[in-house]
Amino acid sequence: MRAFGSEVRKPTLVAVLDLIRERGTVSRVELAEATGLTQTSMTNAIRKLSEFGFVRDAGKERISRGTPRRLLELQPEACYMVGVQFDRFTSVGVLVDLGGRIVIRRELPVAGERDPDEVLPELTEAVSAMIDASGVPRSKVRGIGLATYGPQDRGAGVLLTPQPTPAWRGYPLAATLTEATGLPVVIENDATAAGIGVEALGEASSSFAVVFMAGGIGGGVIIDGNPYRGASSNGVELGHITVDPNGPVCDCGNNGCLDNLSGPRAISTRALEHPSLGSRLALGEDELQNFLAIGRAGVAGDADAAALLETSIRFLAIGAVTLVNMFDVGEVILAGSAFADFGCRYRDAVQDRLDRSVFMRHVHDVKVGIAEHVDDAAAFGAAMVLLRGLLETPSPAI
Amino acid sequence: MRAFGSEVRKPTLVAVLDLIRERGTVSRVELAEATGLTQTSMTNAIRKLSEFGFVRDAGKERISRGTPRRLLELQPEACYMVGVQFDRFTSVGVLVDLGGRIVIRRELPVAGERDPDEVLPELTEAVSAMIDASGVPRSKVRGIGLATYGPQDRGAGVLLTPQPTPAWRGYPLAATLTEATGLPVVIENDATAAGIGVEALGEASSSFAVVFMAGGIGGGVIIDGNPYRGASSNGVELGHITVDPNGPVCDCGNNGCLDNLSGPRAISTRALEHPSLGSRLALGEDELQNFLAIGRAGVAGDADAAALLETSIRFLAIGAVTLVNMFDVGEVILAGSAFADFGCRYRDAVQDRLDRSVFMRHVHDVKVGIAEHVDDAAAFGAAMVLLRGLLETPSPAI
Repeated sequence: MRAFGSEVRKPTLVAVLDLIRERGTVSRVELAEATGLTQTSMTNAIRKLSEFGFVRDAGKERISRGTPRRLLELQPEACYMVGVQFDRFTSVGVLVDLGGRIVIRRELPVAGERDPDEVLPELTEAVSAMIDASGVPRSKVRGIGLATYGPQDRGAGVLLTPQPTPAWRGYPLAATLTEATGLPVVIENDATAAGIGVEALGEASSSFAVVFMAGGIGGGVIIDGNPYRGASSNGVELGHITVDPNGPVCDCGNNGCLDNLSGPRAISTRALEHPSLGSRLALGEDELQNFLAIGRAGVAGDADAAALLETSIRFLAIGAVTLVNMFDVGEVILAGSAFADFGCRYRDAVQDRLDRSVFMRHVHDVKVGIAEHVDDAAAFGAAMVLLRGLLETPSPAI
Repeated sequence: MRAFGSEVRKPTLVAVLDLIRERGTVSRVELAEATGLTQTSMTNAIRKLSEFGFVRDAGKERISRGTPRRLLELQPEACYMVGVQFDRFTSVGVLVDLGGRIVIRRELPVAGERDPDEVLPELTEAVSAMIDASGVPRSKVRGIGLATYGPQDRGAGVLLTPQPTPAWRGYPLAATLTEATGLPVVIENDATAAGIGVEALGEASSSFAVVFMAGGIGGGVIIDGNPYRGASSNGVELGHITVDPNGPVCDCGNNGCLDNLSGPRAISTRALEHPSLGSRLALGEDELQNFLAIGRAGVAGDADAAALLETSIRFLAIGAVTLVNMFDVGEVILAGSAFADFGCRYRDAVQDRLDRSVFMRHVHDVKVGIAEHVDDAAAFGAAMVLLRGLLETPSPAI
């Protein structure tokens, strides 16, 4: 069941820390059994995590027979990470402790149609205000993970798309935020970030796909605990696969893109084109809020709204089958604020279509679920991306 | 640019052997530079390959200054592998030497609508006859790689699909062929096999996708020299993604599948439904041959045939964009007998659509090419899968 041969697994420190977080107080023996690590690797990992102050000895557990087991426990307050999810319509910040608890959550300024020079100072200020409000000492905040849309150059910390304005393309996003906040900043694809967050909490099996829907639709794939990246870290662009060959031309250059048939923006636009739906639901300018209003009205029985919701669901289910047929995963997790309210409608329809259509259903089931932090999945995940980056560095400077 | 972190690379012996094959006579220094392996790993790898008789010392090369370099050369006749590509309509066998040369090629019996008990004895006999005709001593033949459609359980060596008849599902395919031929048999997805063959010959960059079209359409993805496998080795089912939401229901349970819009079978069926095209082109029962006749007629100017060919090309190009948007690769290779004759039509159309539509085109180019062994790509690749399997085993019994 390995994807790329047996060498591929989660980085050791990440795997050990995730397990300690998941299990609470845990013995070295249990850890060794669950990770399959050698004695030496486990000892090294625990030594490093202790040096960072992330775990500490929690005494011994005497079991009926044999040597007492030395216990370890997580120090959740040893460090904190900021996670930000950011796009044209949605922006959320969270401060997460090492234990994976969201200490504070704030709505942050969105990009809208503005240039980075206008948006980033606001974002910086809002993030600083959030840290201050949390009461967590700034010295304990290790950095900022920023989840946003692609294409990206993760290494350089820049976006490679002229969305929402041309000034964003190639703008030194991570560097600017690092300078402004004094904190290390890493960027990540929003759907991949959501996947890393789901993985860190052990919400899914070790190989699964994420369908992320907030401002747009994105995909993420986690195989054996690691994100699928592709040649330039711009894989799994689920929102820009053609699901209708006669569908409208997209900004991306393709046509009939899933995002233009299922996404909040498309559904909002279609509702506003309707002779009465827009005024009936008091729709405004915020396309995600419009989408949520349409979905709620659809669920409550408004036939016009229900038809739009059904269209979105139908195409999203088609996209989910493509995602699973392409990547062969056993689980699909729906994440993002667009699924917060009536995500179960999507979940049930996707499950139904997977059950009937997915190619490897005779080999293994494919389950659909909704992320625990559905609304904040990418922001939470971005914080975990930052932590993971720190732990993956050969000599983490923690 | 790594997909899963820096641990992921081709297995050492495979990487070294591929390089020696690619470069001919080569010095240890060159090998170390090209593979990035440590001195110890390289020494171990060369010792093993020498023990197997795969490489031998080829004296020293005196260069202007410095120590003379010790040269290595491949022993192409050290061993041979059988590769078979097999499905309902197409079946080809090749015997390949260690140098990657196809020693002999034979058309083999196809599955048709028959049960394995009827087909496999014929296949066994035909493979044996091919080995005999090659003049290669049977003791030098290391085994058989069998490339076919999915879903498969590669580990168990069985197909998990009731195609073409229910008896195939769960039939002990590899075990039966092993017993009948006395040779180890491994099975592999046909498109993945084609990818491994392309990779072994160094025809593409280290991360690329394969669009395979013979009896059906399949996809394969190679990342950093390794096949993408997914949770159950049944990923990249390109033929069964929906490219038309209103398209016909497929045997697989999905609808509007690429295979039913672009594939040889679908195009042949549509031609036979046409009032005059079938008789004009003297179409028969072999759907791949029909498809090739339709394509050739289309290229030659028959308007009805051209329309069918254009439909196939159009949907295949849509599927290729989905493949690239999902996996973020820099190259797409077309392989399989359906591309042998007029594959350049597909190549040009796919290239054009990728240039206009693919999401990461501002980040990197995506090139389209046709496999060198276009007709035999999966059979050749299957032979390389077998070799790779031998070399990947911790203690290869060669």
